[in-house]
Amino acid sequence: MKIALVGIGKIAQDQHVPAIAASPDWELAATVSRAGSVEGVPAYTSLADMLAAHPDIGTVSLCLPPVPRFFYARELIAAGRHLMLEKPPGATLSECHALEAMAAEAGVSLFATWHSREAAGVAPARDWLSGREIRRVTVTWKEDVRRWHPGQEWVFEPGGLGVFDPGINALSILTEILAQPVHLSGAELLFPQNRQTPIAADLRFAHPGGAEVSAAFDWRQTGPQTWEIAVETASGALRLTEGGGKLSVNGEDIAPEGEGEYPRLYARMAELVRAGASNVDLAPLRHVADAFLLGRRETVAPFDF
Amino acid sequence: MKIALVGIGKIAQDQHVPAIAASPDWELAATVSRAGSVEGVPAYTSLADMLAAHPDIGTVSLCLPPVPRFFYARELIAAGRHLMLEKPPGATLSECHALEAMAAEAGVSLFATWHSREAAGVAPARDWLSGREIRRVTVTWKEDVRRWHPGQEWVFEPGGLGVFDPGINALSILTEILAQPVHLSGAELLFPQNRQTPIAADLRFAHPGGAEVSAAFDWRQTGPQTWEIAVETASGALRLTEGGGKLSVNGEDIAPEGEGEYPRLYARMAELVRAGASNVDLAPLRHVADAFLLGRRETVAPFDF
Repeated sequence: MKIALVGIGKIAQDQHVPAIAASPDWELAATVSRAGSVEGVPAYTSLADMLAAHPDIGTVSLCLPPVPRFFYARELIAAGRHLMLEKPPGATLSECHALEAMAAEAGVSLFATWHSREAAGVAPARDWLSGREIRRVTVTWKEDVRRWHPGQEWVFEPGGLGVFDPGINALSILTEILAQPVHLSGAELLFPQNRQTPIAADLRFAHPGGAEVSAAFDWRQTGPQTWEIAVETASGALRLTEGGGKLSVNGEDIAPEGEGEYPRLYARMAELVRAGASNVDLAPLRHVADAFLLGRRETVAPFDF
Repeated sequence: MKIALVGIGKIAQDQHVPAIAASPDWELAATVSRAGSVEGVPAYTSLADMLAAHPDIGTVSLCLPPVPRFFYARELIAAGRHLMLEKPPGATLSECHALEAMAAEAGVSLFATWHSREAAGVAPARDWLSGREIRRVTVTWKEDVRRWHPGQEWVFEPGGLGVFDPGINALSILTEILAQPVHLSGAELLFPQNRQTPIAADLRFAHPGGAEVSAAFDWRQTGPQTWEIAVETASGALRLTEGGGKLSVNGEDIAPEGEGEYPRLYARMAELVRAGASNVDLAPLRHVADAFLLGRRETVAPFDF
């Protein structure tokens, strides 16, 4: 099946292009981007021009930052194309609900992707936790924004999510591996004095079974980078490390099999298109919105790249 | 049917108690409150004590501030009581989703009320707008916080919503009268230097038909108070004033009939309980969460009561 990529930036070049190239399901047939392009693939700067030139491209994958994404998504659904959205699926929850309704009405597949859920350890972690009594969940997601978002000023602009841009990956795993839904009970958000989004956040969640669930996000971590979720249960402990890529149970490494995150996303999208189905889970973005709604704001030192 | 009120503060005394007293459907059979009570009605300070003493009270109405509300709501659903929630239905969207799921599982009715939707002009406004081409919607919701929330520090604490506490009333009307859903496209939130929630906000919404939709909320309005929604269509103009209580079309006053807002809410709750149904529309709270998520924060002068 033919697919087009819109937004040829770092994530597209690093992940989407190789995943599509290696996929048995997809052929990259066009790109749309202000500046980026992929060698050997027809490149457009206008979405409308691409759509007019390629009526045979049935699916489009959007790798734009969240704020402009809705306008492209709406145009693509109106043009009857199936749609795959990088995370987060939108700048607001309400626009995601609107897209979901539009896609259903137009009869196209909509896939709000959460790439971290495809990390190799996540599905086995969910299976191991299923039916176990959970006592404590500790999420630690600490990385260096200068290394992962060099010069990307938009992450600190309104709607850019700040430290929740990586943090939402942790929340997408948390909501996948816990059978019972949690909800935020309190949070502190640390805003640099000169910025619109938080650079660090501490979150506490209420769990229906009374487990202590907390998350610490920090974008100021130099040196070793930490993306871990530790779960204590009444019958053993589980630890997801490397962003969900590694899993250990009671201290013993479990080596899950499978492809990388993005190849799995594209395989799922192919399944959705063939089944005429959609997959839009807004729980991770809802937790982020809840954190902005309920969190206590604290001002910290200015940040510059 | 017997009903209990939990949280006997200003809104309970001003609205809930008289509405229940005048209702043909309900008998106020108990109250739970740290300090407040209603003459002639058994008063409790502990929810558990009230529940144990009154197994015949099938329905409970919660008039607490949003932050503690979830814990009471969960206990009540677990005790098999139907539940009516003052607006907003919770401190986070995720807890509202959780309550909805719990109520469905327990087979009790859950009603997330939006009293402003019951204002006399709202239903006729929705009917008049139905099928009309909307060009512009201007929401102006400006009041004096010192007059309406005297000394209520919680409105400026995290989760207290700030100016969105009245603003969500406007959003509940907006989402009721517009046939097509809007979503926030940009916002400015004005936070007093010493406070955790905004004292004023300007919101812009995207409308599927391209109408210009905006809202201005301000809690610093002394003198005349303004709660208005003006709608320009391709075939005439509509104006809701006095919080939805008055409606004019093309400059001509329309005098709608009917009871007040809270009597209508209690009549609807009786219908829901009798039908075994729930009514939980989270759109107004979702717009508020979206505003906190996407809005640009600006710091303004400190505020003290």
